[in-house]
Amino acid sequence: MSMTMPAPAQPILSPDVVLDTPSMLVDETLMEQNISEMQALANSFGAQLRPHIKTHKTPQIALRQISHGARGITCAKLGEAEVMVDGGVEDVLMAYPVVTEIKINRLLALMERARMIVALDSLDAAEALSAAMSKHDRSLDVYVEVNTGQNRAGQLAGDDAVKLALDIARLPGLDVIGVMTHEGQTHTLPADKIAEGAREAGEKLVATAEAIRRAGLPITEVSVGSTPSSMYTPSVGGITEMRPGTYVFRDTTGFLYGQYGPDRCAARVLATVVSHPSKDRMIVDAGSKTLALDKSHGHPGHGYIIGHPGSIIDRLSEEHGVVVIPEDDPGFTIGQRVEIIPNHICPSVNLLDELNIVRDGQVIDVWPIAARGKVR
Amino acid sequence: MSMTMPAPAQPILSPDVVLDTPSMLVDETLMEQNISEMQALANSFGAQLRPHIKTHKTPQIALRQISHGARGITCAKLGEAEVMVDGGVEDVLMAYPVVTEIKINRLLALMERARMIVALDSLDAAEALSAAMSKHDRSLDVYVEVNTGQNRAGQLAGDDAVKLALDIARLPGLDVIGVMTHEGQTHTLPADKIAEGAREAGEKLVATAEAIRRAGLPITEVSVGSTPSSMYTPSVGGITEMRPGTYVFRDTTGFLYGQYGPDRCAARVLATVVSHPSKDRMIVDAGSKTLALDKSHGHPGHGYIIGHPGSIIDRLSEEHGVVVIPEDDPGFTIGQRVEIIPNHICPSVNLLDELNIVRDGQVIDVWPIAARGKVR
Repeated sequence: MSMTMPAPAQPILSPDVVLDTPSMLVDETLMEQNISEMQALANSFGAQLRPHIKTHKTPQIALRQISHGARGITCAKLGEAEVMVDGGVEDVLMAYPVVTEIKINRLLALMERARMIVALDSLDAAEALSAAMSKHDRSLDVYVEVNTGQNRAGQLAGDDAVKLALDIARLPGLDVIGVMTHEGQTHTLPADKIAEGAREAGEKLVATAEAIRRAGLPITEVSVGSTPSSMYTPSVGGITEMRPGTYVFRDTTGFLYGQYGPDRCAARVLATVVSHPSKDRMIVDAGSKTLALDKSHGHPGHGYIIGHPGSIIDRLSEEHGVVVIPEDDPGFTIGQRVEIIPNHICPSVNLLDELNIVRDGQVIDVWPIAARGKVR
Repeated sequence: MSMTMPAPAQPILSPDVVLDTPSMLVDETLMEQNISEMQALANSFGAQLRPHIKTHKTPQIALRQISHGARGITCAKLGEAEVMVDGGVEDVLMAYPVVTEIKINRLLALMERARMIVALDSLDAAEALSAAMSKHDRSLDVYVEVNTGQNRAGQLAGDDAVKLALDIARLPGLDVIGVMTHEGQTHTLPADKIAEGAREAGEKLVATAEAIRRAGLPITEVSVGSTPSSMYTPSVGGITEMRPGTYVFRDTTGFLYGQYGPDRCAARVLATVVSHPSKDRMIVDAGSKTLALDKSHGHPGHGYIIGHPGSIIDRLSEEHGVVVIPEDDPGFTIGQRVEIIPNHICPSVNLLDELNIVRDGQVIDVWPIAARGKVR
C-alpha cells in the first residue's frame, strides 16, 4: 500500500472525563481549522463552497460552514435537507435525482422554506418534476449531472449531457442553471495520479458547460465534488462551485494523499478494550456497527488507533473490533479507552446518535446527529 | 462461488401500496414460519432456544420468539437489553463482556428488572464485576466464553477456559453456571464442510464443560450460537442452548448452505430506480447507508433483487446502489420499485428506523426498530 507516514496524533479527550463507549468525539479546534482551511482553499480558487453535509449530518456544523463563507449545502436525500432547513439552512443542492410523487411533494414543501436546486440525469425524472412544478406554478433550478469518469449516475460528459440539458431546458417549470459532477473515480488513483485525474474530470465538465452555452443555454454553475480531489479539480478555470464533505472531520482514507495525518482528524470513536484473550489480540467495543466496514486507501485494517499506529484493527464483527498487536506495541489493558479514527467517517457518524463536542479535552456540548439515518 | 441455485421469490408488497423508499419490509407470514421452524429444530435437539436479537432489534419480535417457546434472548450491548426489558422481556444473556463502572451500574439496574446472565472471558472483567456485586449484595450468573476456533473473544477451549471458570467461581458474587461459544469460524467454510466444522466446535465446548465439571464446578449450561450452523452444532450431545439470530429474517449469505433460497427471506429493502444512465447500468436509492457493505458468501454483489436474479448490485456508495444489468434481464424503468434481500440483514436493519410489517401484500403495522444503534 502506497502511503505517507502520518504524523503522530494525541488523544483529544482527557482521561479523567467519564464517558460511556463507544462514542463519537469531535475536537472543536480541529474541526474549525478544517472548516476555515477549506473555505480559504475555495476562496483561493475563486470558487463558491457548498459542502456536502453527509459527513456530519448535524445542523450546528452546517451553520458553522456557512458562517465561514459557504454559500449553502449539498444533500443526497430530502430527509437530510428537511433536517437542515429545520435547523436554519436556507440554500440546498439536492445532488441526487428526486423521483416518485411522494418525494416531489416533499421537495415542493421544502421550496416554500428554502432555495432548492435539484441535480438530474434523466429526462424521465425531469418530466415528472416539470409536470409537478407546472401544476403548482413553481419554478425549480436544476443542475444536469455529468459522468466525468466515475460511471455511477450522470449523463456522459459531452454530447449526451448537452442533449439532456437542452431537453430539460425545454420543459416548463425547470431552469437549467448548471452542471455538476462527482469525480469519485479519483479516489482510487495512486497519490501521484490524483491531481492529473481530478483536473481531467474538471476539464471535461467545463468543456461540457461550454458546449451547453454554445448551444444557447446560458448556464452559470459548474460544480465539482469530493474532498480528496479538492486541491485539484477546482483549479481548472471555469469551475464555479465545490462540494467537499469529508474535510470537516477527515479520516484515514485521506492519509494516502499525503495531505494530512491523524493529527488533523477531528472526529474519533472513543472505544474500550473489553477482551484480551491472547498477547497478540485484543477486542474493542467498536465493531462494524460503529466503525462501518468501509476499506481505507490510506491505512491498513479498519481504523487508526491513536498512540498505537502498529496495532491493526484486523477484523470487524458487528460489536467486536479484533485488534492484532505487534511485539513492539506498549500493549493494552482491559477497561482501557482508546481513540480510533475510522476509515470513512461519514458512515460511522451515520451509525451513532450524537457528537460529543470536545474543547481542551473536555466535553463542552452534545449535539444530536439530527440527519442520521435519513435515507429517504 | 459455490452456491445452490435458489428458488425464485415473489415481491411481498403489493404494487398499489404507496410507501416512500428505501424502506424495510417484513413479511409476517415468512417471519412466523422462520420463528416456528427454528423453535421446532431446537425442540428436536432437546435444546433451549435463546435467540440473538441483533437481527431484528425490535421487542415485538423478541416477544413472538418467546411466545413460540424461546427461554429468553441474547444481546450484545446493554442498550439492547434495556430496550428489550422495557418491552417486556424477562430473561437476557449478555453475550459480551460488561466492562467499566458505567456499564456495571447499568447492569445492576437491569438486574432489578430481569434475570441477567453475563458472558466473560477474562479475570480482569470478572474481578470488577465481583467487587460491584459484593458491594451491592447481589449475585450474578455467568457463562465463560470459550474460543472453539473463531479466534475472536473467548478463552481457548480446554485448559485455559477451565482455569478461567475455576478462577471466576472463587470470586464472591459470581455464579458460573455455564459455558458458551460463538462458532463463527463455520461461516466461511464451504457448504459441504459446515456440518463437520460445527460439530467439531460443539464437541470442543462440551468437552470443556465436562472438564469444568470434573474439576468440581457443576455447570449446567452449554450454549452455542449462529444461524448457519444451527442444524449441526446443537446435534452434539450435551449442548443445552442455542442462540441463532439471523434465522428470523434470513439473508443472501444463507443461500450458500443450500438450506433456503430468497423465497424464505422475510425482510427486504424496498428501493426505487432513480437513474438509468446506460442500458447495462441503473442506480437504486439504497446504497451502503441502507444495505450495509457486508459481503455475501451466497450471492454475488451487494444484495439479491427479487425478480432480477441476474442483475447484480455491483457497487455501493452511501446512497447509490449501482446495478449491472445483463442482456437477458427484463429491464428497469426510472421510478420502478424493487425489493432487495440484503447480504447481511442485521446491519441493514440497524441502519433503518422502522420495520413495515406486511401481511398479504399490505402494510398492517409499522414497528420502530427500538434497539437500533444501541452500540453501548
